[in-house]
Amino acid sequence: MSSPNTPLDLTLDGGALTAQLVDFPSVSGDEQPLADAVEAALRAHPHLTVDRYGNNVVARTTLGRAERVLLAGHLDTVPIADNVPSYVDGDLLYGCGTSDMKSGVAVQLRLAATLPEPNRDLTFVFYDCEEIEASRNGLGHLAAAHPDWLAADFAILLEPSGAVVEGGCQGTLRARITLTGTRAHAARSWLGDNAVHHAAEVLTRLSDYRARTVEIDGLEYREGLNAVRIDGGVAGNVIPDECVVTVNFRYAPDRSEAQAEAHVREVFEGYRVEVTDSAPGALPGLGRPAAKAFVAAVGGRARAKFGWTDVARFSALGVPAVNYGPGDPNLAHKREEHCSLTAIAEVEQRLRAWLA
Amino acid sequence: MSSPNTPLDLTLDGGALTAQLVDFPSVSGDEQPLADAVEAALRAHPHLTVDRYGNNVVARTTLGRAERVLLAGHLDTVPIADNVPSYVDGDLLYGCGTSDMKSGVAVQLRLAATLPEPNRDLTFVFYDCEEIEASRNGLGHLAAAHPDWLAADFAILLEPSGAVVEGGCQGTLRARITLTGTRAHAARSWLGDNAVHHAAEVLTRLSDYRARTVEIDGLEYREGLNAVRIDGGVAGNVIPDECVVTVNFRYAPDRSEAQAEAHVREVFEGYRVEVTDSAPGALPGLGRPAAKAFVAAVGGRARAKFGWTDVARFSALGVPAVNYGPGDPNLAHKREEHCSLTAIAEVEQRLRAWLA
Repeated sequence: MSSPNTPLDLTLDGGALTAQLVDFPSVSGDEQPLADAVEAALRAHPHLTVDRYGNNVVARTTLGRAERVLLAGHLDTVPIADNVPSYVDGDLLYGCGTSDMKSGVAVQLRLAATLPEPNRDLTFVFYDCEEIEASRNGLGHLAAAHPDWLAADFAILLEPSGAVVEGGCQGTLRARITLTGTRAHAARSWLGDNAVHHAAEVLTRLSDYRARTVEIDGLEYREGLNAVRIDGGVAGNVIPDECVVTVNFRYAPDRSEAQAEAHVREVFEGYRVEVTDSAPGALPGLGRPAAKAFVAAVGGRARAKFGWTDVARFSALGVPAVNYGPGDPNLAHKREEHCSLTAIAEVEQRLRAWLA
Repeated sequence: MSSPNTPLDLTLDGGALTAQLVDFPSVSGDEQPLADAVEAALRAHPHLTVDRYGNNVVARTTLGRAERVLLAGHLDTVPIADNVPSYVDGDLLYGCGTSDMKSGVAVQLRLAATLPEPNRDLTFVFYDCEEIEASRNGLGHLAAAHPDWLAADFAILLEPSGAVVEGGCQGTLRARITLTGTRAHAARSWLGDNAVHHAAEVLTRLSDYRARTVEIDGLEYREGLNAVRIDGGVAGNVIPDECVVTVNFRYAPDRSEAQAEAHVREVFEGYRVEVTDSAPGALPGLGRPAAKAFVAAVGGRARAKFGWTDVARFSALGVPAVNYGPGDPNLAHKREEHCSLTAIAEVEQRLRAWLA
């Protein structure tokens, strides 16, 4: 529908602009050309103050409104899988990033260009490296270097959510449970102590674990505690002296990181538990006025977000945040990734109606 | 004490001859020079008929005695670990292969050279590649190509046994138990089915398993059923859809291979069990006249052999066999491997007294 590396045309409709963005490759780490194009397109609009940090671009209105709403999206995609350039089939636009999340970025750009006098001050954040290791995440870099650029009363992350508001996100904690024993030749196993057999009790506790479901701000969060890896063994004729069970606890945002860790340690009391990885959840914050008004404006429906997303970064900054984007979360990272053109138009129209 | 690759001197005492053999490197796959030297040394004795197949040498007396006794030993060692040349410290001879099993080979060579008129016909077997994969084992090759060379009423394998008769050997069976489930994102674990959690019951059965101890021909065999490996996991955020537990069953020789397999399948009833590796045990056969006389002659003591050894190959040929050698089985394959010179002299003297 368009060629890569041509200037972005913000007068296109949301679907056509999404196609132009998809045809402009920006796999994680290679976002600079797209960040340049986004910056140039935004600087053409005098009602916006535009800042840049690395390949992260922030555009703001400064109208002195009572409330400020932030709309954020990442510029990068997972690696292309023979699914660029984009193409349209009926209502569906196919291609890498159509759902996750160039359709959301197109909506941001459309609103930035066409709402010179919004009823709330607006901040548009475009950032890099969301699809790779957390230490490279552009939103994290912005939060550390320029937290003032991210100041807002409410944030909307235009991640794929099927055009439904997804509130907050669950926390995630990973831990290694290490069982130890004594090696011996398998022909004289009674001289050893089998560490893999000791894992029986750990797996039984996991198997018997009844996960909690909690309601927060009217949203239902369902937790889960699971083994994601088990590994033990020395050789085919040796009694293993070590077995490691790696568990992943996904927890509702009413628990803090510390409470989540305490819970996991309680479940596996008597065992050696080592936390290897932890990220807090984010409360939906749907009780706040800006959030309430937003949910009402876009249709009144909201559901809990289960996967961990960058809304937790806003939560850590004290900014309530939700996911609300046109993409389909179930299609993210898939070769057949696509997005409904109707959903793109609908999300843009609803946000416009709320902010105009 | 001596140089490698010089002709073997069978007039040396057992300890000195062991040292000469240790200083003659013969790591598995490189036995040809030592096989050549053994063959040449044996051919110097006209009372022996000498045959060769690959790097396997067989020497026999043909006196028409009522009984034939076979003495077997392997020529190869595990890789040298800075422990050649040999050296003597008090009663101990140090070096690679001192225990496993050049001391046994030295006793064989001494008896072959110095017993021209034994009271039973004798067969001496020297073979290659015992320390590596079973398919390369020289005794196996001899059994397939020249089973008549191995015909005997009783066989003694001079593997390290601490100068005590070790009867028979246990069988060994390895099996994979595969648990399956359904993958899902760990944030929505209820959409999946965790295969690792299903291993809880398998490990509990292993942990609860009470291994049998049985007495056969007065020897006590102690079985064992153990997980030797467990492996499951896709990624840190994915519910695993497969978990494999590898078990090793070491069983007393009153069970056949088929019975051992049936037992393992019974223990893990309801699970997918796939046998990957199986080798039958060997009954001690100590009830046979030749075996009875032998045990009495060497001191009347015998114990069960737990590890699988080549005695099972003789058992498969219908020849009862025992392990009886001067080496210390606990030192085999160790850097500090050594052997008692007294034990070498004792084993040679007892065999000589029985066979002279």
